[in-house]
Amino acid sequence: MSNWKEKLLKIDPYVPGEQPIGKHIIKLNANENPYPPSPKALEALQNFSPAQLRLYPNSSALKLKRAVAEHFHLDEKQVFVANGSDEVIAFAFMACFCSPKPILFPDITYSFYTVWCALFHTPYETIALNEQFQIDVNDYAKENGGIILPNPNAPTGTALTKQALIQLLEQNQSSVVIIDEAYVDFGAYSAVELLEKYENLLIVQTFSKSRSLAGMRVGMALGSETLIQTIDAVKNSYNSYTMDSVAIEVASASIADEAYFQKTCQKIIATREKTAQELKKMGFFVFPSQSNFLFVTHNTVPANEIFEALKKENIFIRYFNLPRIQNHLRITIGTEEEMDILLKHIKKIIS
Amino acid sequence: MSNWKEKLLKIDPYVPGEQPIGKHIIKLNANENPYPPSPKALEALQNFSPAQLRLYPNSSALKLKRAVAEHFHLDEKQVFVANGSDEVIAFAFMACFCSPKPILFPDITYSFYTVWCALFHTPYETIALNEQFQIDVNDYAKENGGIILPNPNAPTGTALTKQALIQLLEQNQSSVVIIDEAYVDFGAYSAVELLEKYENLLIVQTFSKSRSLAGMRVGMALGSETLIQTIDAVKNSYNSYTMDSVAIEVASASIADEAYFQKTCQKIIATREKTAQELKKMGFFVFPSQSNFLFVTHNTVPANEIFEALKKENIFIRYFNLPRIQNHLRITIGTEEEMDILLKHIKKIIS
Repeated sequence: MSNWKEKLLKIDPYVPGEQPIGKHIIKLNANENPYPPSPKALEALQNFSPAQLRLYPNSSALKLKRAVAEHFHLDEKQVFVANGSDEVIAFAFMACFCSPKPILFPDITYSFYTVWCALFHTPYETIALNEQFQIDVNDYAKENGGIILPNPNAPTGTALTKQALIQLLEQNQSSVVIIDEAYVDFGAYSAVELLEKYENLLIVQTFSKSRSLAGMRVGMALGSETLIQTIDAVKNSYNSYTMDSVAIEVASASIADEAYFQKTCQKIIATREKTAQELKKMGFFVFPSQSNFLFVTHNTVPANEIFEALKKENIFIRYFNLPRIQNHLRITIGTEEEMDILLKHIKKIIS
Repeated sequence: MSNWKEKLLKIDPYVPGEQPIGKHIIKLNANENPYPPSPKALEALQNFSPAQLRLYPNSSALKLKRAVAEHFHLDEKQVFVANGSDEVIAFAFMACFCSPKPILFPDITYSFYTVWCALFHTPYETIALNEQFQIDVNDYAKENGGIILPNPNAPTGTALTKQALIQLLEQNQSSVVIIDEAYVDFGAYSAVELLEKYENLLIVQTFSKSRSLAGMRVGMALGSETLIQTIDAVKNSYNSYTMDSVAIEVASASIADEAYFQKTCQKIIATREKTAQELKKMGFFVFPSQSNFLFVTHNTVPANEIFEALKKENIFIRYFNLPRIQNHLRITIGTEEEMDILLKHIKKIIS
């Protein structure tokens, strides 16, 4: 008789950043937003009518789809929403990458991509970033089962231009191209306007970074009706109700508050630029960032030493012990005050 | 050049029950609870600190795992939680049904099982219910890649005894056996105590029915450490954070309120028994139910006629146009008042 354990899946899961808890911690390791969500979103939470919790939510989260569509001037049939952008991407993998040809993504990028490939048996090929750690879209002009890349890329923070994105789409019309715009609101070019021309373009965004709702779990995809319908069918073959009633209300209010969104994004961009200047003065190479984090390497002090020394001071940043980037650090942009404390400690560590 | 549309998935999704909205509707079609969630759960929602929404939740929802473990007198390593029991089952399919042999489930059962089989390419074989529409565990004594069945079964409402469940487990020790206990709290035998003996047993429960939190999306699995670890690895290969911070707080408070839970379950059971008696008097055959719904068929009036006539009165019940059950209806147990109105209308329709 065979053992039941032989019928279980063997897989190496993704490992998210540490979630240390404590009052005196400075947490710059998960690209969270240092500012609270929009007051309108908090109001929606306060006004939420708890009696409705006994009922199932609307299975397509129509209210939120409509709010997102309105924000981006799209049709609601071009919008998909789910329980965080990781879930959106997982559905998109199942829906769009059904070819025996390998999908393409950068060698240095969001490390979840290879995990989804393992889970869904998606063949893939990684394309090396160039020597400046940038994506060269010329390298993607080859047969493929699909393309996925973050813009800006993570953990480098560097973005592609509009022209480069158009070239990428022009040369890849026989597969789906997913642009993962998790960090786009901090200064990069968003491809939303290109949806009109490219039916095979899928844009993924999240409420976790620029909209400060990581704890609420909301992500979205924007694309042609054909693409959205296919992803919806996968969602409805997996879990009819991935968005809860509270998240639908809170996220709908959040995306309607453009003024607060712009204000906090601008604050983070200003803090990022100031922090980058200070780090350069201390001997860091700072990659040009259009995200809410900085990717840096010091000219004499090893990255892991800085990482460990900061941890002792209860300051958490991110260190990836991976090929090509073992001497680099990713630092989330916090408040002005948090960055001042960080810089003070780094100064001490490297001297 | 190939077309990008050829690389998309083709699948027939699950279709959930209608979600009609309106003040004068009586909604008995989705097995929702007619009573509100525990006041303790509502209090947790009111007391939720919105500032924490900017941060990611704890990725394993540890607080909720501990509350569930305490409730069932299990170790927290024997508990998995996710975004509704449908998501729990989807993960369990990926984690536990990795054999080329077919998994087994009843021919008349939760219709999502075949959809997951399609999505995850899981081979399956359905086992016919006996003539009394009951599961006969003897029929499951054959080679298989796993077994999944609801207890009580849906949409029949009929439950297996402890003895039958033990026989099922004794004869199936070389694959995982999933008991889907979505409706178990309304009078059926829960297999939780059998976890101690059977490491290949996975029990799935939900907060959507007996705990009145369908809108919050919370489900759980209970099993051996080996099983739970495997399902956790799948979750972490799919989406690190499937449970949002609000759901973790609300569900933790809900499961700790045993008194309210018992009171509402007992009320629903009492209403069910009363309703069953009344329906029998009107010429219905009523299957013995240990769930929060009744499965019925009338001796003269066709099921779809009753279904359509009730719909015109804004009363929604469930009719499945499927083999063997085209002349049956599933009626969720609502409040006493709702059932009185339903019975009054049915009386009119069948006379």
